[in-house]
Amino acid sequence: TKTYNICLLPGDGIGPEIIAEGVKVLDAAGAKYDTAFSYTEALLGGCAIDACGTALPDETLRVAEASDAVLLAAVGGPKWDTTDPAKPRPEQGLLGIRKALGLYTNLRPVQIFNALADASTLKPEIVDGVDMMIVRELTGGLYFGRRERFYDEDGCGTSGAAGQRAYDTLEYREYEVERIARQAFEAARKRRNKVTSVDKANVLETSRMWREIVHRVGAEEYPDVELEDLLVDNTAMQLISRPVDFDVVVTENMFGDILSDEAAQITGSLGMLASASLGDGTALYEPSHGSAPDIAGRGIANPLAQILSVEMMLRYSFDMNEAADDIRRAVTAVLDEGWRTGDIKQVDTPADKIVGTVAMGDLVVSHL
Amino acid sequence: TKTYNICLLPGDGIGPEIIAEGVKVLDAAGAKYDTAFSYTEALLGGCAIDACGTALPDETLRVAEASDAVLLAAVGGPKWDTTDPAKPRPEQGLLGIRKALGLYTNLRPVQIFNALADASTLKPEIVDGVDMMIVRELTGGLYFGRRERFYDEDGCGTSGAAGQRAYDTLEYREYEVERIARQAFEAARKRRNKVTSVDKANVLETSRMWREIVHRVGAEEYPDVELEDLLVDNTAMQLISRPVDFDVVVTENMFGDILSDEAAQITGSLGMLASASLGDGTALYEPSHGSAPDIAGRGIANPLAQILSVEMMLRYSFDMNEAADDIRRAVTAVLDEGWRTGDIKQVDTPADKIVGTVAMGDLVVSHL
Ligand SMILES: CC(C)[C@H](C(=O)O)[C@@H](O)C(=O)O
Ligand SMILES: CC(C)[C@H](C(=O)O)[C@@H](O)C(=O)O
Repeated sequence: TKTYNICLLPGDGIGPEIIAEGVKVLDAAGAKYDTAFSYTEALLGGCAIDACGTALPDETLRVAEASDAVLLAAVGGPKWDTTDPAKPRPEQGLLGIRKALGLYTNLRPVQIFNALADASTLKPEIVDGVDMMIVRELTGGLYFGRRERFYDEDGCGTSGAAGQRAYDTLEYREYEVERIARQAFEAARKRRNKVTSVDKANVLETSRMWREIVHRVGAEEYPDVELEDLLVDNTAMQLISRPVDFDVVVTENMFGDILSDEAAQITGSLGMLASASLGDGTALYEPSHGSAPDIAGRGIANPLAQILSVEMMLRYSFDMNEAADDIRRAVTAVLDEGWRTGDIKQVDTPADKIVGTVAMGDLVVSHL
Repeated sequence: TKTYNICLLPGDGIGPEIIAEGVKVLDAAGAKYDTAFSYTEALLGGCAIDACGTALPDETLRVAEASDAVLLAAVGGPKWDTTDPAKPRPEQGLLGIRKALGLYTNLRPVQIFNALADASTLKPEIVDGVDMMIVRELTGGLYFGRRERFYDEDGCGTSGAAGQRAYDTLEYREYEVERIARQAFEAARKRRNKVTSVDKANVLETSRMWREIVHRVGAEEYPDVELEDLLVDNTAMQLISRPVDFDVVVTENMFGDILSDEAAQITGSLGMLASASLGDGTALYEPSHGSAPDIAGRGIANPLAQILSVEMMLRYSFDMNEAADDIRRAVTAVLDEGWRTGDIKQVDTPADKIVGTVAMGDLVVSHL
């Protein structure tokens, strides 16, 4: 029996409830394929601020680095919302662990489960067959560039008035663009062989550099993969006008944040979407949705995105593709049988088919 | 008879064809309300690069500054596409004139014409009643911050490898946020009294400053207007899940570029959407769509967004609200009668109701 060490980061809000279902499914899948998982829980986000005064305690990073994979639920909540730069914020935990583990690739698959196709606010003929992979650069750009706020006594001559000034820096280096481009081309080779590279090359210097490097990597190393460029504003339109046409979409950190959420919303069921954050060492898996503090502790949260993040873990960290396929099949079967959590219930869902977090986890396990 | 001087910037692609229809409608509206318009044409974008080697010739700026309003069609095309920083690009003309005229407020109304409601890729019950105003800051942020690309010999210790580096700077000053916030609150007072301020305050320092200033201006000067904050990634989702709930959306330049295009696409007919760019002097009006080089010169382009930009000019620059209402009514009537250009034709549009650019302009004039 092979054993993997998993770092569990339940985080805040519904986090602890859904991660328990992820663990349940991971154990069940492991049992079937003669693999054992051992778990170490650690603090990240708001709960870490409350306990240790920082969103990413050293101990958490130590546990994560020593693990074979990290399973995260979600962090944040109104309790810790602040614009005071002196106060710690839950997101710093998320951003900190991404940077510390070098998780430069964020993979966000966007697919429609047939049973939930009508959840989309888009017309059925538009979303039918949507299957794309957003590849978001995760450790560069505006998220990690130099930033500052200060009081400018003389307004720098631009306006008469003195006042506050602030800046953030969008910065990229050649190797950062190269490596994320390779991830996108590799992903495309396992899919429909097409990459859409998104930038704002008509305005940004980083985008012009991005475009040149992506094309060089494509021409030199992946001449078999189709490559197109699309401006970010145009992409925001095309994602909702012809989502089926996208295969792999690769873009920088902030554009990726915006576009991956837009793409997720196309499905109409954010509670079903998982993501993987990969680097050169330990990888991290999490749902695409947030910590939903409004429904925390009530046992009604949808654990399926967390369970599908376990599917991605099996695929990307442990090469257990059969086990991963089993989980996806199980989730599909549970949905096809009509079982729903509150967030994905439909107008015609009978009351006795609406289940809570634990029951949904049990249903998936029973189909494995 | 009152006379206004209008600077015409036909630009590239379909620009010259559609601006002619805008002028036709402006003249007709003027005739009805005892107002004359005199026109001076100037070069901007690709055509200016071809003629003068620069996208914004001094002469153009001189004419624009001396005018009572500027009517722009569209600039750009593949002919001038380049990532070489040494070469002029058409967009520099657009960005240059925005900055030179101090056009810090970009207003993009998003409304559905009933006759075209089925053009949306969103379900009818989702788009029914959509009526929002995107207020985009237009002369700050990443668009105008310091940017640079250089070769870094030692890779700055971050990676072993030497290579290219580039950065763009997202910068805002207090007065820039204050004045765009006021524009948003003022717009809301004339509408449904609600402002959604969009930022990324959980990551960016500029966003945290933005949020504080917008709240201060709101509390001090517009306590009667409802104000909510929404993160940019969440906004990208909510725009397609519940677009009807938005009234005024205010945001910084780059977020505004992305979100206004996404919001425009909700209508499914980009060829119908106009925008106004306002500052403290001469204002500029243009369609939200581009120069469509693929159909240029064929007489089939849709002139309605250009005509609706004339509507905005009458409203915002000349306080001619009745004339503006007339234009909107005329466009609505033409659509209700079933007339369509190619881009907005429906499956059941009879061939003899599909008209070209000039005929569409004539139809609008005939309804004035
Ligand atoms: C919480 C926030 C900092 C984070 C991000 O912007 O990356 C989130 O939106 C995400 O996409 O994972
Ligand atoms: C052409 C481009 C520079 C411009 C922008 O990004 O502002 C355009 O997309 C717009 O929205 O007017």
